[in-house]
Amino acid sequence: MSSPAILDASCIFCKIIKGEIPSFKVYETKYSYSFLDIEPTAEGHILIIPKYHGAKLHNIPDEYLADILPVTKKLVKALGLEIESPEGTGYNVLQNNGRIAHQFVDHVHFHLIPKRNAEEGLYEGWPAKKADMGELKKIADDLVKKLDE
Amino acid sequence: MSSPAILDASCIFCKIIKGEIPSFKVYETKYSYSFLDIEPTAEGHILIIPKYHGAKLHNIPDEYLADILPVTKKLVKALGLEIESPEGTGYNVLQNNGRIAHQFVDHVHFHLIPKRNAEEGLYEGWPAKKADMGELKKIADDLVKKLDE
Repeated sequence: MSSPAILDASCIFCKIIKGEIPSFKVYETKYSYSFLDIEPTAEGHILIIPKYHGAKLHNIPDEYLADILPVTKKLVKALGLEIESPEGTGYNVLQNNGRIAHQFVDHVHFHLIPKRNAEEGLYEGWPAKKADMGELKKIADDLVKKLDE
Repeated sequence: MSSPAILDASCIFCKIIKGEIPSFKVYETKYSYSFLDIEPTAEGHILIIPKYHGAKLHNIPDEYLADILPVTKKLVKALGLEIESPEGTGYNVLQNNGRIAHQFVDHVHFHLIPKRNAEEGLYEGWPAKKADMGELKKIADDLVKKLDE
């Protein structure tokens, strides 16, 4: 497939894209490559990666990013996850950036993780707290200013 | 802003997009609306939602999906999360589909969650297991067939 791939010679995921390391490929576009995670947390756990070497989401050009979620949608349907079951089938899409945030391969990868029952898939650690509205306003104002620059 | 928004009268996130319910808006495009989560799990926890009412990712048209991650990149930079700190700043992008997968508002929303230290943000529950290669091959072959149809 013709590809605008920008790859790194020493990256394990770039080697997978180039076919230098075998993988269970399920789908490929000009901008992305999708394959099974070999340490799945649920059956059909897929990694979707851009064909552009970058460690974190903010390193990836927009045209590669724009491809990821439409591809994810195709994969959800191929997995049959759009079909509602009585227990309520679901799925999670997760992308981690940085060791502190549980990223262990330094090439951006999106996890598509089926959730068919409580025993498999992701369960969330999520220390949510009610926020102070004044503090939220300050944070929002600051971000709006930065985004306007 | 002119918008191709397809909204639902009774959805709380659609009401936020329309301004019928107040929010701490930080950014908006033709296709998406970004605002602070009022139950943040970290400072600057943002929700990015399509201006299209759909409960799950696979219900959303491609043009709305394609907008989400380039917007997320802008927000990462506005939050200063692209700057590496000695402890290693990071962030997670998470999107949940279905009650069983921890979705509690039935309008697709992407969480952008800063991870500046171990105490805040997402920590993962992730029951990974080594997979049987023969089983993986069967799953991949089946998906490839479905994606070729």
